[in-house]
Amino acid sequence: MFIGFSEAETFLRNCRDAVIITHMSPDGDCIGSGFGLKDILSELGVRSRVVCSDPFPKRYDFMTNTGVGEDFEPQTIIAVDIADPKLMGKYEEIYGGKVQLCIDHHISNKNYAEKTLLRGEATAACEIIYDLAKFMGVKITRHCAMCLYTGIATDSGCFKYDCTTPRAHEIAAEMKRCYDINFAKINRYMFEVKSLGRMKLEGKVSELMEAHLDGKLAILAVTQDMMKELGIAMEELEGFAPMTIQLEDTEVGILLREREPGVYKCSFRSADQVNVSAICQELGGGGHVKAAGCTVEGDIDEVKNKLIEAVRKAL
Amino acid sequence: MFIGFSEAETFLRNCRDAVIITHMSPDGDCIGSGFGLKDILSELGVRSRVVCSDPFPKRYDFMTNTGVGEDFEPQTIIAVDIADPKLMGKYEEIYGGKVQLCIDHHISNKNYAEKTLLRGEATAACEIIYDLAKFMGVKITRHCAMCLYTGIATDSGCFKYDCTTPRAHEIAAEMKRCYDINFAKINRYMFEVKSLGRMKLEGKVSELMEAHLDGKLAILAVTQDMMKELGIAMEELEGFAPMTIQLEDTEVGILLREREPGVYKCSFRSADQVNVSAICQELGGGGHVKAAGCTVEGDIDEVKNKLIEAVRKAL
Repeated sequence: MFIGFSEAETFLRNCRDAVIITHMSPDGDCIGSGFGLKDILSELGVRSRVVCSDPFPKRYDFMTNTGVGEDFEPQTIIAVDIADPKLMGKYEEIYGGKVQLCIDHHISNKNYAEKTLLRGEATAACEIIYDLAKFMGVKITRHCAMCLYTGIATDSGCFKYDCTTPRAHEIAAEMKRCYDINFAKINRYMFEVKSLGRMKLEGKVSELMEAHLDGKLAILAVTQDMMKELGIAMEELEGFAPMTIQLEDTEVGILLREREPGVYKCSFRSADQVNVSAICQELGGGGHVKAAGCTVEGDIDEVKNKLIEAVRKAL
Repeated sequence: MFIGFSEAETFLRNCRDAVIITHMSPDGDCIGSGFGLKDILSELGVRSRVVCSDPFPKRYDFMTNTGVGEDFEPQTIIAVDIADPKLMGKYEEIYGGKVQLCIDHHISNKNYAEKTLLRGEATAACEIIYDLAKFMGVKITRHCAMCLYTGIATDSGCFKYDCTTPRAHEIAAEMKRCYDINFAKINRYMFEVKSLGRMKLEGKVSELMEAHLDGKLAILAVTQDMMKELGIAMEELEGFAPMTIQLEDTEVGILLREREPGVYKCSFRSADQVNVSAICQELGGGGHVKAAGCTVEGDIDEVKNKLIEAVRKAL
């Protein structure tokens, strides 16, 4: 059942001993939502514990440093930023069917919880939690504000992406007026820093970038031989697809990775207008309008030509 | 003389045939200020022309596409985002001593104009111009909003840096509520896209990055031999200093470029706490707290050791 702020308030004011579930491969928004909501519950006198199927990465220490919470027998199950119980990882089995309140901003939410506070237009789950706390008149501590800011900044790409709402900017303005927080430091850790290994890997990979179709198509193709030569594993190339749409004239970018000899995993990104999901469907794959994928077989030149042809038709 | 909004309004409502000067090596803030102010003057029935010592780069076309303005004998000289007449380039000689109104946000402003509307706390000159237009009750057209947004986004690093004011976020929120503008596209062009050449150069350069002092110091040293080998000119390495503080533990980053045999231009950046201006002063240079420079002579290893020692003491 979808609910509004008023019902969510009643629920939170009357719950006790709550487990707050965050999604696996945790990011700034689910960690910010989890630890931010824990702070809010604490203001209400409700003890809670944040759980995650994976460890929280070290760079999020400034949010998780208040501790995940005591070990108690939970009476209340809350999920934050989780559209589908599958994303709970190992907690799906324990809590997947028992979620009483879900707070989420994904329009794809499976409506799996008893009550769901869904705002599909929100930049981040943290934006909803901030507005809910304001609605309830609960004090938002400095730590809570840091958590909620981080979630909003994460999901908006530091206010860069399409999904950045006016409300996201308004909340950031309110926080900057009310709290002495080093926002620039948070942004640096979320958006700028990388490991030396990652920097060098990006360096190696960027030299492989190719421009086709008058620069409208960028291809980054990595064969198994190249991976061997550069000393990198296929998994290390996760997250490199967005790099393919960093070139100035590029409309479509494709990251090609040779999964097994002659079999290429193709990850498409669209810079703005082109529907790459449609292109990938033609090639037997699928996905979203701006991020999609497919698998193509052949030698590297055949595969590239096939992709170039498919993109040429779509442009 | 420093003036407030009310006097600036009187000035703008009573001026005619205005030249708006932007600084050389034009960026998003001075171009946004120039073309945004031109739109505002146009609403007031005042014709104006935007001038710059350098050509406006192509990626700013969406701002400059309204044209620089007619060719008339100027009766009014306005400077935007210019702290020092030297920054006018070839226009210093013509207009340097004749500026009637300067709108600027640099606290280092030389107070060279007859009247200066200075707001040192503003993120960008565009932030001041937006607030001035609001104060005056002048219509801000969609094109004008695009210009002013671009300036604010540019100077705040897309709302990432320390200098991002609450007001910057509030203005972005207001604009997102009022105008149908593809903000994400502007941000992509300002902050993500690069040329294939630049991407490959970054790739080559990142492989040269070294971590010292347990990763607290990053050094990127490029000798003349390396430049020759990589086929790059010293000027092409402008803008690479910020890359030195992208490593996760780095507190100080130094870009070293061999200007002539055995003479290194050292550009320092501080990630957060360390005052690199003090370090550079010790070495005979100077600059700002977070960005400074000096020149050090010797062979590359001597120079590196000298810098490592100086940073070790400062940490």
